Amino acid sequence: MKSVFTKSILIKCILALLLAANAAFAADSLPSWNDTVHKKAIIAFVEEVTREGSPNFVPPAERIATFDNDGTLWSEQPMYFPQAFTFDRIKALAPQHPEWKEKQLFKAVLEGDLKTVLSASQQAQFELEIAARDGNTTEEYAQIVKDWSITAKHPKTGRPYTEMVYQPMLELLAYLRDNGFKTFVVSGGWTDFMRPWTEKVYGIPPEQVVGSSVKTKFEPRNGRPVLAFLPEINFIDDGAGKAIGINDYIGRRPIASFGNSDGDLQMLQWTTAGNGARLALIVHHTDAEREWAYDRTSYIGRLDKALDEAVAKGWIVVDMKADWKIIHPFEKK
Amino acid sequence: MKSVFTKSILIKCILALLLAANAAFAADSLPSWNDTVHKKAIIAFVEEVTREGSPNFVPPAERIATFDNDGTLWSEQPMYFPQAFTFDRIKALAPQHPEWKEKQLFKAVLEGDLKTVLSASQQAQFELEIAARDGNTTEEYAQIVKDWSITAKHPKTGRPYTEMVYQPMLELLAYLRDNGFKTFVVSGGWTDFMRPWTEKVYGIPPEQVVGSSVKTKFEPRNGRPVLAFLPEINFIDDGAGKAIGINDYIGRRPIASFGNSDGDLQMLQWTTAGNGARLALIVHHTDAEREWAYDRTSYIGRLDKALDEAVAKGWIVVDMKADWKIIHPFEKK
Repeated sequence: MKSVFTKSILIKCILALLLAANAAFAADSLPSWNDTVHKKAIIAFVEEVTREGSPNFVPPAERIATFDNDGTLWSEQPMYFPQAFTFDRIKALAPQHPEWKEKQLFKAVLEGDLKTVLSASQQAQFELEIAARDGNTTEEYAQIVKDWSITAKHPKTGRPYTEMVYQPMLELLAYLRDNGFKTFVVSGGWTDFMRPWTEKVYGIPPEQVVGSSVKTKFEPRNGRPVLAFLPEINFIDDGAGKAIGINDYIGRRPIASFGNSDGDLQMLQWTTAGNGARLALIVHHTDAEREWAYDRTSYIGRLDKALDEAVAKGWIVVDMKADWKIIHPFEKK
Repeated sequence: MKSVFTKSILIKCILALLLAANAAFAADSLPSWNDTVHKKAIIAFVEEVTREGSPNFVPPAERIATFDNDGTLWSEQPMYFPQAFTFDRIKALAPQHPEWKEKQLFKAVLEGDLKTVLSASQQAQFELEIAARDGNTTEEYAQIVKDWSITAKHPKTGRPYTEMVYQPMLELLAYLRDNGFKTFVVSGGWTDFMRPWTEKVYGIPPEQVVGSSVKTKFEPRNGRPVLAFLPEINFIDDGAGKAIGINDYIGRRPIASFGNSDGDLQMLQWTTAGNGARLALIVHHTDAEREWAYDRTSYIGRLDKALDEAVAKGWIVVDMKADWKIIHPFEKK
């Protein structure tokens, strides 16, 4: 059948319809954000980079947004969630490893002594990660993480960890995606801890999750090739590592980045050093009642240098208490 | 305005329309493929994994397809294109480096002696890569690659390298994407050599390109943060490295993989070791007249063990001469 429409024209028509439909319903994309200057600044940025003809228009393919995870998309108190999992895993495996009782760091984990663990060297802490992976293949480990994410409960709220995410940030993720952005997690947490559940909680697929990682080895096991963990750090996605990781794993400079601690500083610097309009945002934990309040002196999620630089450079510093109507989804009426 | 339509329903309606429009025009998605059993097997696989209700149905998010690059998506004779670029770059920089004349490997490059270069150790060859990056930042280097990709001509055909891609594979990439697949390059070539032009030639964005890479360092330069190259290999995406790279960079096992040499064997093994329907395809270079004919004894793109395994396991082995109506886009009438 011959037609005046080509496939390409028809698809473009339909995509135009899709965008129009989307715009018509976009009125309240951020309902959990109070109507402050911060919400207005986010919307102004998105409109500026997406409006055709705008001097700062960015083609959809280049609308890359990167989000730190711990403390930016989900809570990180009273301990980083990746660490909560590792602790649970070490405790579950401990009966098979009586020798751990003699090892100081493992002893600290079994006694729930987070401070001792966090003050150990990176290499020493990494020993816990290898122990937690316990000879599993990458696939077996992903299943263990998935099971944990469904069953484990947060020690303060008693909620599943999947519900400890920030409702206003979920709305922001969806709002950006509705406007043609591709959203990535760029976190210091272990990639293999995040990927099994980021799609479910954030709508972010595994291939858009950049994190710290453990080296692996390709080998046959029971006649089938598997990936086994090696006792070696592959990559630490924190601090300057976040700019490096963005280049290595994504290969494009983000136009918008979101963080909450000094570990996100270089990601925000890297993002804002590009040409054209840029959005840099820091989530400041200011709500001791509904969540936690901490910044310059916290040993979890310390926000000190990045706070100074944010103020000096006019980045958005979200005041959780003033800017967010609700923190977690379960507060919804 | 209140409406019985929610945004989500409206978007789903429009997406359904888009898929229907696409299907209506899908009759000849692979026009440069002869109507052989291989073309039929590709189409049968795609229909099987995309048909709702099929026992092998795969949700769109999990339709990951990975493609080797050199010899699978573009030609690799008379020398790998990444190496052609490195050679050109070394030659361009040589006047500033008289000392290179005394170094055996650099001398080989300046004299166009590919065999000597390819028979050197990986570490020795890597010295050429560092020399080619010549203190550039990652951004400067991307621009140099981009400029080269537009101006450099293939030594045999005289065509720009951008045209040395395989028309049947371009159609296959588009056909898979039209059917909800996400297409990735997984190549032994340098990521920073591929990313500046894969979007233009394949429609594959930088964030879907996995390759070999050089370590970088985040540092200030003229008051602006940059990423500078370090003289250290970060990752070699070849052989078992391809399965490892897929896990590290993509985080999902592909359901379809495409290669042409022994360096792709583990990627194909990794892909086919998953459950459900899987597609493994090898491009066999059999056309000495229109392209090149080589396999078991070639020092570029050797296809030996992978050919045996493909035959033993019933993977598709594309016979370029018999399966493809045209090889490169410029042969189109």
